[in-house]
Amino acid sequence: MQRRHLIFGGAAAGLGALAAVGATLTGTAQNPASPALDIQLHGETIVPFYGVRQAGVQTPPQAHGSFIALDLNPGTVPDRVRALLKLLSDDAAKLTGGKAALADTEGEMAVRPARLTVTFGFGPGLMSVVAPAKAPAWLKPLPAFSIDRLVPEFSGGDLLLQICSDDPMTVAHAQRMLLKDSRSFATVKWVQQGFRRARGSDETGTTMRNLFGQVDGTANPGPGSQKFGAVVWGDAANPAWTEHGTSLVIRRIRMDLDKWDGLDRPGRDESIGRRMDNGAPLTGVQEHDEPDFDAVNAAGFPVIADFSHLRRARPEDESQRIYRRAYNYDVAPGAGRASESGLVFASYQADVNRQFVPIQQRLDELDLLNEWTTPVGSAVFAIPPGCQPGGFVGETLFV
Amino acid sequence: MQRRHLIFGGAAAGLGALAAVGATLTGTAQNPASPALDIQLHGETIVPFYGVRQAGVQTPPQAHGSFIALDLNPGTVPDRVRALLKLLSDDAAKLTGGKAALADTEGEMAVRPARLTVTFGFGPGLMSVVAPAKAPAWLKPLPAFSIDRLVPEFSGGDLLLQICSDDPMTVAHAQRMLLKDSRSFATVKWVQQGFRRARGSDETGTTMRNLFGQVDGTANPGPGSQKFGAVVWGDAANPAWTEHGTSLVIRRIRMDLDKWDGLDRPGRDESIGRRMDNGAPLTGVQEHDEPDFDAVNAAGFPVIADFSHLRRARPEDESQRIYRRAYNYDVAPGAGRASESGLVFASYQADVNRQFVPIQQRLDELDLLNEWTTPVGSAVFAIPPGCQPGGFVGETLFV
Repeated sequence: MQRRHLIFGGAAAGLGALAAVGATLTGTAQNPASPALDIQLHGETIVPFYGVRQAGVQTPPQAHGSFIALDLNPGTVPDRVRALLKLLSDDAAKLTGGKAALADTEGEMAVRPARLTVTFGFGPGLMSVVAPAKAPAWLKPLPAFSIDRLVPEFSGGDLLLQICSDDPMTVAHAQRMLLKDSRSFATVKWVQQGFRRARGSDETGTTMRNLFGQVDGTANPGPGSQKFGAVVWGDAANPAWTEHGTSLVIRRIRMDLDKWDGLDRPGRDESIGRRMDNGAPLTGVQEHDEPDFDAVNAAGFPVIADFSHLRRARPEDESQRIYRRAYNYDVAPGAGRASESGLVFASYQADVNRQFVPIQQRLDELDLLNEWTTPVGSAVFAIPPGCQPGGFVGETLFV
Repeated sequence: MQRRHLIFGGAAAGLGALAAVGATLTGTAQNPASPALDIQLHGETIVPFYGVRQAGVQTPPQAHGSFIALDLNPGTVPDRVRALLKLLSDDAAKLTGGKAALADTEGEMAVRPARLTVTFGFGPGLMSVVAPAKAPAWLKPLPAFSIDRLVPEFSGGDLLLQICSDDPMTVAHAQRMLLKDSRSFATVKWVQQGFRRARGSDETGTTMRNLFGQVDGTANPGPGSQKFGAVVWGDAANPAWTEHGTSLVIRRIRMDLDKWDGLDRPGRDESIGRRMDNGAPLTGVQEHDEPDFDAVNAAGFPVIADFSHLRRARPEDESQRIYRRAYNYDVAPGAGRASESGLVFASYQADVNRQFVPIQQRLDELDLLNEWTTPVGSAVFAIPPGCQPGGFVGETLFV
């Protein structure tokens, strides 16, 4: 380990006493049992809740995410949905701002938001209660795919809460607070928790790897890309109340790591169409090299195989792009297994039918990765626009 | 948010291109959608695996922990245990050093250890295979406590792997790798995963809160304390092969947050004996003020109640101290509940019988916190000493 020198300027208030004095941080060489722990503090970093659009979509992905689907109580009337959304919006505004929610009995846990965002999504069930005629055409379960082995425990839901933060304690507290306030309105249908690399573990902007070790998301039109807006925000064909909103597809993709072990590196590279080591397409050298789908090898076969995930997932039609914001999951394995792992696949797109469904249909027809992956959960939500102080997420639906 | 100025000195190589140029980091004011993400990178920080003592005990707690108990296959002979320990020690040495393990098919995931430690523990079953006569007297299931509601799914086990890192991806990869290499030797009995605040979210040395919101561990004799060595490392009464080793008690403590909600703040303060807001004893002002157990209120009753957790947990006999290194858990709640949460309680002590059991007996007899907590899992392990390159953890047992 190199010695790392870190000097804080004058405006370092709030960085903690140890760091603020201008510390020389050392690696493990001098004190093997206790590597220096003082890094720039990020717990107080705030992502504003209020805005034209909801946070948690364009926000660079936080390290931890919890996706929660609620089912409204039977017989719920629109006014109750409105009351719930007002209550949860107020909670979310306070918590994301590092403040205790109104009914918060553990308010001290709110002081480190660490980029906490709370994003609300509306399922078909909520729309049918409030305003069935205003539901976007794509707000319904996805078409059945032959590869699906869906279970109800991870599918559907009336109201989605997406809670993301760089601190897992913050996610736990926000989740607890929001579910407490939801208790008299709705029941929990499912909870899916996941993670990416820790904040500060990797360079900003590094494409994440999934638990196959695959560099996953190279071509993703990320928050900083020119395409992002067109891919995610709005579509003239959508109902007016969804302006500045989007859609969210959540798929729980089980990954069979035990079976994946049986595949050697060349086999993995070929099934993906990219090199496992750095994510470069098999026709290139660097991760972001443009794949050459016409290239053939000495035997005349395509270098990027027809069955490869890269070729099948890549839309020929640019209007079919989606923005993925996935989280890995790794939970206690069942008897006789070494892991129970996968991906909480989450994608945002202006129109599910136009953008997401064609890609998934191609992958359903042919994608060698299907050998090692199984979709076990599926849900679609409308993500309404944001709100201003005094308002609430979803208010445009009640006008 | 204040503007935060961060200047990296000359030796900043490896900090990532964006940060290394000497960046001015801004908070949310200028770019609300995208708070600055560049913080000092900590993914490459290494805690040495080799040493007189195993890492992961005195190591300041990492943000994520996974505790895994394996059961040896029926009929396992000592040589097989030896082979397994050699294999896993070699894997652990490589992974904690940021390198791929020998059979690692996703070696690129190893490059961010983020203070990864792998700590091995031996249960009664392993000892009975290898050397029954060498088992410490305390290496057996804890005495039955009246508050226990233990389930086999979280209790016992022959071999413990404790995997901790500040990066959850690193934990997942190390866990996968170690379990892959264990497959032909043993089966997974249980996995318990937990978390604390993210690295860099809070000031170093802040006492953690559990999911009750309680400041938990104020009096803990931590890695930096004078008492640590005497509490944790060795005991003349223990077998010679355990020199520089210790013991680990793991208890899964379910916390009933729904019921806890019904208790107001004064009730919480009184049941704990400390203030919820800052952890100060009810007779003090600051967290680390020494509690005054003799103080009485105007009515003549003790300020720190007889039934309080503080009074019951605090040993009158200094030799009964333990070092706690716990992780919170928060998993998907069952039907009709808002949370399924608790603590993976983990404590190290030189002698379970002398140090841990008397404390737990006092808490079993009387502790108001028992109203809201239920132990559902329990396991005891001997933590052998560390090893040097070429050796393996547990080798002193085979001499």
